[in-house]
Amino acid sequence: MSQSIFTGLSAFPLTPADDEGRVDTEGLQRLLDRILKADVQSIGLLGSTGIYMYLTREERRRAVAAAVESINRKIPVIVGVGALRTDEAQALARDAAAEGADALLLAPVSYTPLTEEEVFRHFEAVASATDLPICIYNNPSTTHFSVGPDLLQRLSGIAQIQAVKMPLPKDMGFAQEIAGLRARLPAEFKIGYSGDWGAGEALLAGADAWYSVVAGLFPAPAAALTKSACRGHAAEVDYLDKAFSPLWSLFKAYGSLRVIYAAAAHLGLISARPPRPILPLAADVMAQIGAAIADLEG
Amino acid sequence: MSQSIFTGLSAFPLTPADDEGRVDTEGLQRLLDRILKADVQSIGLLGSTGIYMYLTREERRRAVAAAVESINRKIPVIVGVGALRTDEAQALARDAAAEGADALLLAPVSYTPLTEEEVFRHFEAVASATDLPICIYNNPSTTHFSVGPDLLQRLSGIAQIQAVKMPLPKDMGFAQEIAGLRARLPAEFKIGYSGDWGAGEALLAGADAWYSVVAGLFPAPAAALTKSACRGHAAEVDYLDKAFSPLWSLFKAYGSLRVIYAAAAHLGLISARPPRPILPLAADVMAQIGAAIADLEG
Repeated sequence: MSQSIFTGLSAFPLTPADDEGRVDTEGLQRLLDRILKADVQSIGLLGSTGIYMYLTREERRRAVAAAVESINRKIPVIVGVGALRTDEAQALARDAAAEGADALLLAPVSYTPLTEEEVFRHFEAVASATDLPICIYNNPSTTHFSVGPDLLQRLSGIAQIQAVKMPLPKDMGFAQEIAGLRARLPAEFKIGYSGDWGAGEALLAGADAWYSVVAGLFPAPAAALTKSACRGHAAEVDYLDKAFSPLWSLFKAYGSLRVIYAAAAHLGLISARPPRPILPLAADVMAQIGAAIADLEG
Repeated sequence: MSQSIFTGLSAFPLTPADDEGRVDTEGLQRLLDRILKADVQSIGLLGSTGIYMYLTREERRRAVAAAVESINRKIPVIVGVGALRTDEAQALARDAAAEGADALLLAPVSYTPLTEEEVFRHFEAVASATDLPICIYNNPSTTHFSVGPDLLQRLSGIAQIQAVKMPLPKDMGFAQEIAGLRARLPAEFKIGYSGDWGAGEALLAGADAWYSVVAGLFPAPAAALTKSACRGHAAEVDYLDKAFSPLWSLFKAYGSLRVIYAAAAHLGLISARPPRPILPLAADVMAQIGAAIADLEG
């Protein structure tokens, strides 16, 4: 893998906040300290699990400042700056840059369904707001906009746009998708995946990065899986992935965000709840959390 | 039709704002004055066309205050209070009530996909914030949550929740859908539709209300269509709908929001653009606007 910020394992911690949406910066720093003990290549701050869409501009800036302080330049921090309005995303990008972020993660968040031209111009405008490199956050299940190959190619023509975070392909056809994308994108453009349960396969198929929710809480086993996969050791990946499989089942059933909040609470790391309307898992599901993460605790 | 706020024609004006999202209250009042000259039963302020998701809490409050002043209790005003966070939707509801709104329109806006329980508890929480009656804004194409019959029935058990604004049924099967819903909802619960090009059919099939984008700009022809449909005059509805049909084609091709901004600009009523990332229509489409609305101008 190259020296790009957008390679290897990127750990996405949740952003603990109180019920009014005020970020618990000490709780966030505890989660970051845990991540920094493992062999992780970057921090993905304020991703979907980091509830970026549920926090105000002020609280997002506080979270970036606290994270940059904690990380202390050991590894790069990629900050989610998605917003419904273009001017707000630009302001968030400037805030992140001012607080010391190394890169930006930008999702085409939508309410009114957007056209490709609108999304292109949105990215262009946010790119112009700072000098930071940008990873396109392609996550149709939350943004309700799918960045297709044509638009991706066009966006890759903007110098700062250097990577994409892809959702899992429907048929898990990573090799074909990656080959198709590489044929259309600049050689140095990085293709990474989110959707934790497909990450081993994605990396084995040649993906550049794993944007990982689970690494935000269990960085060591995620780092081991990443290394085995990047070295092409399929049998090791299979073995290491088994420890995650009860968690993958819960992710698929209840959403990774709700499950990771429950796991963090189970470990005694945070007491924050997800932002309403999102509810904590019901008691009967909570009871399954301990067993699901038993093999992942160091 | 009964005396409920949630019956007849509800006109949804756009909310003119500058590029920074500051509401042009005088422009809004011009649009409202135009609506009040027609036989319209309510104003739907800060709906999707009213760009509620793109305005701050402060600007939404300013819009409500300006609208209440203009409307001067001639007809009720229903205010959109949707937000991603439950506490923010509650605050918006309290603001609307404090400024004199008559009713609330609440959409289950989502980023993280929501469960039915989460949406139920969200509505319950917002209902508890004020005494105002609430219309459920069921619009899966923007909120990415579909309020199905089971949840609708459960929500109708909350005393303040008295109506639903439905999207067009896929097969335009209004009669069947309305019969199915009425069988499960309290007798006084009102069922209305948005999706302007289906409104005539919806009202002929017994819908209680038309939540109308086009009535925000062309209230007189929309009011005529509403009256003919509520009286069951299918041939009249057919005739009156013909004048709208070039506009319906543009709505379907470019989205009603972009088209209605272009039409309002064409009429010289406002100069505001939609909020970025949403772009004004391209010049070649703009050129079609005049012809499309020629039959609708009074």
